[in-house]
Amino acid sequence: MSEIAGFCDQSKLQKVRVDLKERGYDIEIGVGNLVHLGPLMTSFAQARHVVLLTDGNVAPLYADSIAGHLAAYDLTVDMIILEPGEESKSVAAAECLWERLLEIGTDRQSIVMAVGGGVVGDLAGFVAATYSRGLRFFQVPTTLLAQVDSSVGGKVGVNLASGKNMVGAFHQPLGVLIDTQTLDTLDDAQYLAGLGEVLKYGVSLDASLFELLEANVEPLRRRDHRLLTDIIARCCRIKADIVEQDERETTGLRAKLNYGHTFAHAYETLAGYGTLLHGLAVAIGLVDAAKLARELGRVDDDFVKRQIELNRQFGLPVRFDGIDPDQVIGFMLRDKKVVGGTLRFVLPTEIGQCELVGDIASETVKQVWVCE
Amino acid sequence: MSEIAGFCDQSKLQKVRVDLKERGYDIEIGVGNLVHLGPLMTSFAQARHVVLLTDGNVAPLYADSIAGHLAAYDLTVDMIILEPGEESKSVAAAECLWERLLEIGTDRQSIVMAVGGGVVGDLAGFVAATYSRGLRFFQVPTTLLAQVDSSVGGKVGVNLASGKNMVGAFHQPLGVLIDTQTLDTLDDAQYLAGLGEVLKYGVSLDASLFELLEANVEPLRRRDHRLLTDIIARCCRIKADIVEQDERETTGLRAKLNYGHTFAHAYETLAGYGTLLHGLAVAIGLVDAAKLARELGRVDDDFVKRQIELNRQFGLPVRFDGIDPDQVIGFMLRDKKVVGGTLRFVLPTEIGQCELVGDIASETVKQVWVCE
Repeated sequence: MSEIAGFCDQSKLQKVRVDLKERGYDIEIGVGNLVHLGPLMTSFAQARHVVLLTDGNVAPLYADSIAGHLAAYDLTVDMIILEPGEESKSVAAAECLWERLLEIGTDRQSIVMAVGGGVVGDLAGFVAATYSRGLRFFQVPTTLLAQVDSSVGGKVGVNLASGKNMVGAFHQPLGVLIDTQTLDTLDDAQYLAGLGEVLKYGVSLDASLFELLEANVEPLRRRDHRLLTDIIARCCRIKADIVEQDERETTGLRAKLNYGHTFAHAYETLAGYGTLLHGLAVAIGLVDAAKLARELGRVDDDFVKRQIELNRQFGLPVRFDGIDPDQVIGFMLRDKKVVGGTLRFVLPTEIGQCELVGDIASETVKQVWVCE
Repeated sequence: MSEIAGFCDQSKLQKVRVDLKERGYDIEIGVGNLVHLGPLMTSFAQARHVVLLTDGNVAPLYADSIAGHLAAYDLTVDMIILEPGEESKSVAAAECLWERLLEIGTDRQSIVMAVGGGVVGDLAGFVAATYSRGLRFFQVPTTLLAQVDSSVGGKVGVNLASGKNMVGAFHQPLGVLIDTQTLDTLDDAQYLAGLGEVLKYGVSLDASLFELLEANVEPLRRRDHRLLTDIIARCCRIKADIVEQDERETTGLRAKLNYGHTFAHAYETLAGYGTLLHGLAVAIGLVDAAKLARELGRVDDDFVKRQIELNRQFGLPVRFDGIDPDQVIGFMLRDKKVVGGTLRFVLPTEIGQCELVGDIASETVKQVWVCE
């Protein structure tokens, strides 16, 4: 099998530690560091069998060479290749995988490794969480969105026909390894979608990150590896800080990570799963959350303009066209964050600060779609 | 709606406390205590909506009246009635339930209540564990098997086409309520199946329980409520002691609860899911585990005879006919307890004592099926 290409510059390696009650894990971020996977996996107790889950796009780019690399470290590797796309994040796909794991003799010492984007990670994680009541799980996210978001924090799951992420679990990984070189092979829309989620961290949780983004539009657009390593590490640290305090979304703190997401989920559902990339929907959601906060007198007009301006500089969308407001409100009322039938949103107070606000009237939300 | 019949004798009420790291819960065992459900449910924070899952057999017997009783305590109740039988413990049934929960507007404050036997409890628990990444879950087991086994300890899950309980989670309930009056409506085979699991606790974990069973064959055969309340509480306490020390089956201690089960699971698979009742398969497994221990020189011939004699007095089976040894070994090698491809069994050293024994040769196991 092929070898992993590239050279890992140890001096640029970043580590983010996620400390959880039961056990913690490390997120390693670097340039060319896929070559660390073999030594890392063999460092885990009783690691003999790795089930590598990936999709048809990622297999020829990285997964084949990772499988060869792991085999060179005396690990037995079974690779399962999924159809690319959101359709694979389904109960039917999960059932296929469970049956396949059983066929290949997966046992509780086996490790499930997800190599790919959010769909692969969420599905692989859910299957790992539930097969034989829980297998160990390792994440190698290869999209920017997965690197800053879905691969950190242990949320795994699949979609139902009528509800995104409605079935799932909290299943923390053994560890996460991120190689920013994998971002070179993303198409522009995929990469931009990841930036949408990066912007979210800045505007809702870290004003200095927001300023860094405003000051580095050009190097980020050309995917500067070194800058990306720093920014990804920063986003992971922000998310880890929150997940450490609210692992299971019980205190309300973790809800802050969903800034812009109530809008985004509704748009993704409206567009049809997989049509609108999650990160692009989030980018629109950031603008809408800003507008809703302005509507409620929580931020001024400049806040909204600054968000729209940054979206535009990166080439991110700022609105979702052709909305039926009642339909969108209907979707929102079925969101997991809804409590007792009233709408709640994470809303900003200033750049880098947000809070969960409950009891928001549907009519107020609808104003978001009529004003600029 | 109908009312729950019967009178609850408070003096005979038993409580078993399960103390777990994150939180504990109570198992209440009594005669006619279904009437406690309403006050109990309203004691949980934000309890407004109960999704009552049951099957077509149990609905007319208890679930309808429980639903009416809960509604009288101002709880909104949605009842979902499953097809009775092991076939309902499937991924397809879970998917139907997830979709149905979404349709009826289930949110994270909703409580899923399982009213029925092990199939209902395991399926409802798995759906509760995974819908919206986890709903609260309450168990009202109405079969003896579920009362002493599946409703305690948090193991929930469904079967795959080729592997029983291969998909699931650890999801501890909010609480468990057991009314021994519900045992009156079980057919003889169902009741006997429960006794198979009761015998398991005695022979593998509690010698004085085993002696109590030997001394009370007649009152147990006629389902004496008061005696059953004591015996069920005792079984729940034994299981709770083990689950408290090994909630997630990581230390090996919890494996002791599976005494006789490696044989039983293989027989259930051979017979076809749902054909051979789990507890009856366990009853045979108890005899086979005794024989295997004798083969290895761990117990004497008297131990085996005492087990066979007690099975016979209760009318429980003592062997599975028409076995293809290689096929059974094949099934066993796919059991979740298999580690690194070698067979492990929980085996007795004396009445009330057992331990996990690894590295057992297939040829030794096969001797179980050739000797009496």
